[in-house]
Amino acid sequence: MSHPFFERHRATLDRAVEAIGSRGYWTPFPESPSPKVYGEGAAETGRHCFDALLNQRFPLTQPATVGQVGNERSPYGMKLGVTYPKPDIDGLMTAIEAAQSNWRKAGPEAWVGVSLEILDRINKSSFEIANAIMHTTGQAFVMSFQAGGPHAQDRGLEAVAYAWDQMRRVPAQATWEKPQGKSDPVRMEKRFRIVPRGVALVIGCSTFPTWNAYPGLFASLATGNAVVVKPHPNAILPLAITVRIAREVLTEGGFDANVVTLVAHDAADNIAQTLALRPEIKIVDFTGSTANGRWLEEHARQAQVYTEKAGVNQVIIDSAADFKGLVRNLAFSIALYTGQMCTAPQNIYVPKDGIDTAEGHLTFDEVAAGLAQGVEKLLADPVRAVEVLGAVANEGVLRRLEAARSLGQIALDTRTITHAQFPDATIRTPLIIKLKKGDRATYLNEWFGPIAFVIETDSTAESLAIARDAVVGHGALTMAVYSTRTDVIDRAIEVAEDVGVALSINLTGGVFVNQSAAFSDYHGTGANPAANAALTDAAYVANRFRVVQHRMHA
Amino acid sequence: MSHPFFERHRATLDRAVEAIGSRGYWTPFPESPSPKVYGEGAAETGRHCFDALLNQRFPLTQPATVGQVGNERSPYGMKLGVTYPKPDIDGLMTAIEAAQSNWRKAGPEAWVGVSLEILDRINKSSFEIANAIMHTTGQAFVMSFQAGGPHAQDRGLEAVAYAWDQMRRVPAQATWEKPQGKSDPVRMEKRFRIVPRGVALVIGCSTFPTWNAYPGLFASLATGNAVVVKPHPNAILPLAITVRIAREVLTEGGFDANVVTLVAHDAADNIAQTLALRPEIKIVDFTGSTANGRWLEEHARQAQVYTEKAGVNQVIIDSAADFKGLVRNLAFSIALYTGQMCTAPQNIYVPKDGIDTAEGHLTFDEVAAGLAQGVEKLLADPVRAVEVLGAVANEGVLRRLEAARSLGQIALDTRTITHAQFPDATIRTPLIIKLKKGDRATYLNEWFGPIAFVIETDSTAESLAIARDAVVGHGALTMAVYSTRTDVIDRAIEVAEDVGVALSINLTGGVFVNQSAAFSDYHGTGANPAANAALTDAAYVANRFRVVQHRMHA
Repeated sequence: MSHPFFERHRATLDRAVEAIGSRGYWTPFPESPSPKVYGEGAAETGRHCFDALLNQRFPLTQPATVGQVGNERSPYGMKLGVTYPKPDIDGLMTAIEAAQSNWRKAGPEAWVGVSLEILDRINKSSFEIANAIMHTTGQAFVMSFQAGGPHAQDRGLEAVAYAWDQMRRVPAQATWEKPQGKSDPVRMEKRFRIVPRGVALVIGCSTFPTWNAYPGLFASLATGNAVVVKPHPNAILPLAITVRIAREVLTEGGFDANVVTLVAHDAADNIAQTLALRPEIKIVDFTGSTANGRWLEEHARQAQVYTEKAGVNQVIIDSAADFKGLVRNLAFSIALYTGQMCTAPQNIYVPKDGIDTAEGHLTFDEVAAGLAQGVEKLLADPVRAVEVLGAVANEGVLRRLEAARSLGQIALDTRTITHAQFPDATIRTPLIIKLKKGDRATYLNEWFGPIAFVIETDSTAESLAIARDAVVGHGALTMAVYSTRTDVIDRAIEVAEDVGVALSINLTGGVFVNQSAAFSDYHGTGANPAANAALTDAAYVANRFRVVQHRMHA
Repeated sequence: MSHPFFERHRATLDRAVEAIGSRGYWTPFPESPSPKVYGEGAAETGRHCFDALLNQRFPLTQPATVGQVGNERSPYGMKLGVTYPKPDIDGLMTAIEAAQSNWRKAGPEAWVGVSLEILDRINKSSFEIANAIMHTTGQAFVMSFQAGGPHAQDRGLEAVAYAWDQMRRVPAQATWEKPQGKSDPVRMEKRFRIVPRGVALVIGCSTFPTWNAYPGLFASLATGNAVVVKPHPNAILPLAITVRIAREVLTEGGFDANVVTLVAHDAADNIAQTLALRPEIKIVDFTGSTANGRWLEEHARQAQVYTEKAGVNQVIIDSAADFKGLVRNLAFSIALYTGQMCTAPQNIYVPKDGIDTAEGHLTFDEVAAGLAQGVEKLLADPVRAVEVLGAVANEGVLRRLEAARSLGQIALDTRTITHAQFPDATIRTPLIIKLKKGDRATYLNEWFGPIAFVIETDSTAESLAIARDAVVGHGALTMAVYSTRTDVIDRAIEVAEDVGVALSINLTGGVFVNQSAAFSDYHGTGANPAANAALTDAAYVANRFRVVQHRMHA
């Protein structure tokens, strides 16, 4: 059963499938917010769409609505004033069940076609979504546009491509003809139908509401599941826009809009737990805290649970051919979005005897000071600084910054910057603390935010040994190594492969350890405690559907 | 890194990958035990090999051996007298960890090559293994040979083909080149390494020790994991031979034999639970009882757990174009291996008003009587009967047979047959009981063994409704429907796809509902409580390995 949406996007799908096989650079969603790319007036239109949503009921009509919820506040200062339908969960589930019956029978081409059309329309709404991302997460505008728009769309498309690539391998039918010597063969006709697991739940996070939600959302939708989207109470709007678009496309495509629904809630409400334990929910995708992720893994036993939790990211500095490049690169990684990224570096191990660089030997203190100066320099101009830092997303970051100041010797203290355009925004620069190798109880915990530790070790071998223990015990999404010695690089690769963490080697240019490019970089490995799955691979999609066969004599 | 074993079997692998994509008939392992196929004297040699194993220490030298265990008794009467090394688990794990370091780095071609060579040598030992299967499970010889030999080997090869098909999609390296307008592009070199999860545990069952163990064993081995094989205490020998061959091949291939190890144990020992909770164990494959399967799913949280548990298989009789064919087919399915198959039919629903057949209307009682006569006729000749029935594998079957006799009206009573060649064997014919639709508490449980219920329902619609509830609530591996009406067939397909169970339609010829052909039929769906995975699909293999990348500026 083909579908017009499938035909419309077939070329993009084929190219995406090619991209996941070669894993080079590719995207159909340009990351530049330039009017040359998205059209004159696109930015202004998107901004107007966003403004029109403020202080209103969000335009989403869902069944079983029993009230309105929503209390988002922009990290840049204003209250959004948007409210969303509050559903009665029993009633919503009944409506979803009704919506499912046609959707589950529609088949892979319809599921994939609808998913691709949704992504295409999301792309056309990138400016509206970028404003929503900015004013829920605190990201600066360009980052909001890129990470929350095209890059998130790429991740969604990548998931659709994997889903299609797996589903198309299952033949719709087969003739089974078994030879019987001189007698006629035994002949059977077989039909193989791909069926979804049921209803999927996507639990969004507050810092990257679209980037982290789209893979699960589209992996589940493209394999025929209905999807309930439950945003973080601080970042509902970007996913509400997403759900609104999905429902429009479903309706146009001839399906019941309730295949995709939104469950918004206030911070005090533990609706995520209630939803995750519903018998209808067969798939859960989660991004958030280790405690909540583990709870889901432990309790949502009726479902396939995919989690991205916290980690402690690792940097090993052994030596440097380009220390200035190292500093520039790491300083940006530490400062970007105030370190509020699950991929941001935290622990930077440096041997106590210092490191060799092309410009000569540097002591441990000189390395720490170099990093501190690099961050200072990057953020010297407040106008430029706020475009790197964005705003502090929540009080927890401020509390950790304050607590971290007394953990060791301060190499770089955190500063407050005033945002000229948004004077109510809280803007903070990174804190860099010097620690000893014995301070494990401190540095083996995640200090989410702009907090980096420069940790004195006996040697690079010890740095690698500590990094290994940290990844095994506490998880990590990224690891970086700087060295001019091939034996150190080889050893770092070996450690990374042993413990299952992605490694970046000698990054000094315009790629940063906290960046992960769809179609090319796997985000997470599923092999250490930070995440039980990778974005995106075959394992991420292959168990979201099942194959049910019937057979008869031919 | 290629490997000689990989090159040797490359053509078979390519053909197997083609087979899983088209799902027609194919096998490289002939199922006929004829000397024309396996060579003159092959049967006798295999028998001699088996005889030479009896009343001896099994020739397997493993590290950390602290004693001998083993107390198998043939369902045909004799004690096998074979003992196996009893390992100290801590010591064994240390040895496995040492063996793993080279194995995990060897890469997909070596893992797959070694797996294929092991399967090839297992095939050459099919007669030795067939005797071991017969004298542990009680299957008749030809079934022991076919199901325990070539068909099991097919299932193992199928798993290897899926593993290879998934691993080969991950490129070893990529160049990522991102355009930068008029500036030079940003270029990154990336390497993607496939790494195994760790150590896999395969928990065997007593009735199909090889058929049910090979998929997990080879799926894990072919993706680079070390494998611990823990047979059921009643059926150690077939898997001990398997492990012996695997260790020989590993050694010849340049690897540490401890990549594959055997953990045999006595019935009273709960070593499976101890093993399953070891932190080194990252994958568990299990076939057995619902209670044990659920325990593993609940407790072995550090591992990916794949389970095949119990189910209640369903037959809906609505009408018949060929009632004699129906009877012949179902009678064989009920009798085969004394019903000791997870796929054997148990509940046969017939409308209380009877059914239409090409030969006229039959009442409910006539349908039940027809089935009873069919079984009687099939088993009338004791010499032929024992070749269908095999022997009763354990006391549990006898207890259930006795208990089931008082559940309802007996349509066919169970009989005892004496095996001319093995007078000590316990041979029992099927019991067929008539039940009412209200007897749910009885027929919704699994009565493992040669026990079939003919259940009176108000209508075929009700039969389908009950079957639906049974599959959702209690699981099923198979469902069958007999009808001359396309609307009934369509409705049965709809129910089967809704609840996730494989459906056989109007089987009257030489294919039986309890048979599942590798490369074509999916065994289990993973979509109902009988099994959380299917043999074999992409989802069964894709999460047994992970991808770890490293990247650097180009």
